[in-house]
Amino acid sequence: MIHLRLSLALSYEVNAPGSDFIFNIHAAQTRRQKVVHESLIINQNVPWNVEDDPSTGNRFLRLSAATGLLQVRYTASVELSHHIAEPEQVDEIPVAQLPFQVLRYLYPSRYCQSDRLYLLAMREFGHCQTGYSRVQAICDWVAGRITYVKNTSDSNSSAIDTLIETAGVCRDFAHLMIALCRASNIPARFATGVNYGINLTYDTFDFHAYVEVYLVGGWYLFDPSGIAIPMGLLRLGTGRDAADVAFATIFGEVVSSPPWIGIETIADANGSLVLPQRVPSALSTDDWH
Amino acid sequence: MIHLRLSLALSYEVNAPGSDFIFNIHAAQTRRQKVVHESLIINQNVPWNVEDDPSTGNRFLRLSAATGLLQVRYTASVELSHHIAEPEQVDEIPVAQLPFQVLRYLYPSRYCQSDRLYLLAMREFGHCQTGYSRVQAICDWVAGRITYVKNTSDSNSSAIDTLIETAGVCRDFAHLMIALCRASNIPARFATGVNYGINLTYDTFDFHAYVEVYLVGGWYLFDPSGIAIPMGLLRLGTGRDAADVAFATIFGEVVSSPPWIGIETIADANGSLVLPQRVPSALSTDDWH
Amino acid sequence: MIHLRLSLALSYEVNAPGSDFIFNIHAAQTRRQKVVHESLIINQNVPWNVEDDPSTGNRFLRLSAATGLLQVRYTASVELSHHIAEPEQVDEIPVAQLPFQVLRYLYPSRYCQSDRLYLLAMREFGHCQTGYSRVQAICDWVAGRITYVKNTSDSNSSAIDTLIETAGVCRDFAHLMIALCRASNIPARFATGVNYGINLTYDTFDFHAYVEVYLVGGWYLFDPSGIAIPMGLLRLGTGRDAADVAFATIFGEVVSSPPWIGIETIADANGSLVLPQRVPSALSTDDWH
Amino acid sequence: MIHLRLSLALSYEVNAPGSDFIFNIHAAQTRRQKVVHESLIINQNVPWNVEDDPSTGNRFLRLSAATGLLQVRYTASVELSHHIAEPEQVDEIPVAQLPFQVLRYLYPSRYCQSDRLYLLAMREFGHCQTGYSRVQAICDWVAGRITYVKNTSDSNSSAIDTLIETAGVCRDFAHLMIALCRASNIPARFATGVNYGINLTYDTFDFHAYVEVYLVGGWYLFDPSGIAIPMGLLRLGTGRDAADVAFATIFGEVVSSPPWIGIETIADANGSLVLPQRVPSALSTDDWH
Repeated sequence: MIHLRLSLALSYEVNAPGSDFIFNIHAAQTRRQKVVHESLIINQNVPWNVEDDPSTGNRFLRLSAATGLLQVRYTASVELSHHIAEPEQVDEIPVAQLPFQVLRYLYPSRYCQSDRLYLLAMREFGHCQTGYSRVQAICDWVAGRITYVKNTSDSNSSAIDTLIETAGVCRDFAHLMIALCRASNIPARFATGVNYGINLTYDTFDFHAYVEVYLVGGWYLFDPSGIAIPMGLLRLGTGRDAADVAFATIFGEVVSSPPWIGIETIADANGSLVLPQRVPSALSTDDWH
Repeated sequence: MIHLRLSLALSYEVNAPGSDFIFNIHAAQTRRQKVVHESLIINQNVPWNVEDDPSTGNRFLRLSAATGLLQVRYTASVELSHHIAEPEQVDEIPVAQLPFQVLRYLYPSRYCQSDRLYLLAMREFGHCQTGYSRVQAICDWVAGRITYVKNTSDSNSSAIDTLIETAGVCRDFAHLMIALCRASNIPARFATGVNYGINLTYDTFDFHAYVEVYLVGGWYLFDPSGIAIPMGLLRLGTGRDAADVAFATIFGEVVSSPPWIGIETIADANGSLVLPQRVPSALSTDDWH
Repeated sequence: MIHLRLSLALSYEVNAPGSDFIFNIHAAQTRRQKVVHESLIINQNVPWNVEDDPSTGNRFLRLSAATGLLQVRYTASVELSHHIAEPEQVDEIPVAQLPFQVLRYLYPSRYCQSDRLYLLAMREFGHCQTGYSRVQAICDWVAGRITYVKNTSDSNSSAIDTLIETAGVCRDFAHLMIALCRASNIPARFATGVNYGINLTYDTFDFHAYVEVYLVGGWYLFDPSGIAIPMGLLRLGTGRDAADVAFATIFGEVVSSPPWIGIETIADANGSLVLPQRVPSALSTDDWH
Repeated sequence: MIHLRLSLALSYEVNAPGSDFIFNIHAAQTRRQKVVHESLIINQNVPWNVEDDPSTGNRFLRLSAATGLLQVRYTASVELSHHIAEPEQVDEIPVAQLPFQVLRYLYPSRYCQSDRLYLLAMREFGHCQTGYSRVQAICDWVAGRITYVKNTSDSNSSAIDTLIETAGVCRDFAHLMIALCRASNIPARFATGVNYGINLTYDTFDFHAYVEVYLVGGWYLFDPSGIAIPMGLLRLGTGRDAADVAFATIFGEVVSSPPWIGIETIADANGSLVLPQRVPSALSTDDWH
């Protein structure tokens, strides 16, 4: 188990009254990720509420802002203990045995057009041994063919675009890997989170996008962009793709500033500090949702 | 209230053992649509189960078929009583007040890329009076610009393709209307069902695709293809688009025959027969899901 | 007849030896546009040549640059006298009578996918009276539906994207108008040039993209972006779309600076100065090529 | 040198008067392909003419048909002697030295969006030794990744679609190979022709689409679909992609029947018969156009 402190500061200039915001900036509540303490400060005196989606653990802050500056600060202390499994012991689940609620992650979505990639997936991964190693092969295939380049893709870019142009950012890597998993009949979904590494204390990070794949034992973490140290991420949200879990969905005339994000490892109640370590194992949320 | 009897017969030639099927052929169970009686006959002696999705009322039959002929026959008696409202009294719901579970129908999906249509929607519908009439304007816009032509579109066609090529079938009309509603910040979803009309008895129909839009009072029915008599449809499933509610999703080597579908109006317990009538009113499921 | 002086200055940082450049910055030589005098200064001592394409009047400067700074300065004095016709007297030419060399401008190209727009063109323009006024209707349709917005489109954007997203720059307006003309069986091509207006002297402009349409009397000028005063443009190049007439096509590792462009009206040999005037007439190059 | 006799029969039902046809069914006239004798029979008594494009050797039959049946029969005796070179001696031509008229085949076109494939081409072929073998590597890459399947693609399918869906027909293989060559800065174009093989006499064939690539010595033939015996094809037309050289471009309401095509090896004037043989060498038209 690792203890983390997350801090976020968001800032917007709201140009029209009644601009609605849907934020997905709260740490998810899952069996493996417990929010011990959290605080939320909003500079405007407007009503807001946080809603939990029991089917995913996602938590959404909703508010309707007044004209002028809107500042949102969120901090949370989180206990995170991924389920660790040996990759060679993690099998795929036949479609017939997939939980009903997981089926949606087999189908194509806005940015993951898996329906067009069946032949490609069959050629590339159809002969792999099934299980975690096949998913790892998909992850490695994406990592090996796509180059991390900023400003080559935009919010309109999909898995198809990334496959063609072979460049993108973490979100694009994730979409392509998800599309290839689904085209291989393996449920996969998009996750957003905050990346933490070894010996990091309060620094500025960007939000990170990665992949969760459903195998025996729950949803397993993969990062085809190769950015995150493969020891886990603090999860904010999961969805079918980036369309579902934007950290801020805004309805109205609003000018955004870049988010400020910090994360640090903290001591537990006994004063002991567990530092993140790179592990070769499979990490999962040990959970169906 | 109207009483209907639905009959479906599906037939497949299964060429590989263990081919998985997910059917969405059961009549949905909603507040306004009650399944009084139903039967299911499967020619193969294989295990199957029907799962209900409480969040949508969709019901999915799942089975893993053996090699050879697979035949599925489903019949149901259904009581259907749409909520009827006066269009001018049906308002839109501000984003801030939308139920949490409805938000997903605001976001773009595989076949409804609303994120690319914001400017178009604003130009065409931004100045319409809000409410049912604005949604009707979107429906009419689609009906007026798209021509019903078979074999011009395929399972890969999306709202964007339909907007460009201005031709398609009911599924394509529905996707485009949904995308334009979402681009106007109005939740909309894809529905599949069976169309019934006046004086129809046991005949062969195709499955129909139409649109449900979330306004004050619940999900309202629209048929931009203009095919269905606007008095309701027997609903099978709803989802974000056609990717979610294929009547049959098949994993394996299978050759399909066209489905056989029949529907007829039947007498109620007292022997009285209510015939469908064309109504000018707004029809809804009176329900959030 | 109007006399113009064009000045261009281009600047590049070449990071690899042997980087090849193909420039289309020379004023085109056509029956209606005569280059009276021109000069070219290249700061590097490398071989270069200018090639003329007799089929279009385009002129291409080609050179292979050395590492370091590359500066190209071009000035030209140009006599320009567009053919002026009365719009109502300008007819379309039946496909059967089109010159052979013009046929290529009927076919779809990289950024003008006219093959997907036949039904749309037929619905919108199929019932227009044929001739210049129909082309003007296409121009007005594009002008009325597309909004000029910088940074919404990029070099990958095509007529299809512009039709969907309803925003772009002059290049995007041109591509969409061209695609709709071709879908209406009217030859249309992409033109690049420099825009001059009333009372303008030596100022900084950007290159402009517009449309030429083939009707009785030759290629007629249209500017669906509405930017250019409809009295003519100094033409640099024409092609099937932007893929053919980039002002600089670069093969190698090169960092570009924005071009500097100036244009002014000058006196003729007799010292008389003709100023540009806005004319309501149809302007053409009076020429098949 | 080989002697071939080509026979074509085309049949259409014309439903509106004045339907224009542009056919590209005449054997091309090139330095290496001589039309010794040809005949053309058109059942309707309508004016027609054949135009030659000196820049490509393409020949286009144009006519305006009357209502009713239109039948076109074309036969030709052709002498074909491809230039044969040793692959290891065929180099690429640096962009700076490419003939001006060849540059257009470096640029993206409707079905060959090479501009989106630069990174992919650089990764896959950037480290290959330049020359014929690099082009062969591109050809083999396409042949190895794309599966020949009828009815998966249509006239709207482009190189991008083929790369994603990894299936298509000869036209799709050709478009993808062309796009990858251009993305590697190697001029490539689309060719249509009739495939002849060993010991074939008068049989029914389909038109074939293949690729010509410009290297030292002229345009070299490649068939990424692997269908044609690599010993040459009787060429009908070349263009930037399929948009330029449809065997029939039709303007009007017309119902088409499948073409009938026959080809056979014939004896020369001395009565000697040269049979086609499979050769491992590079074949070209030995010509810039």
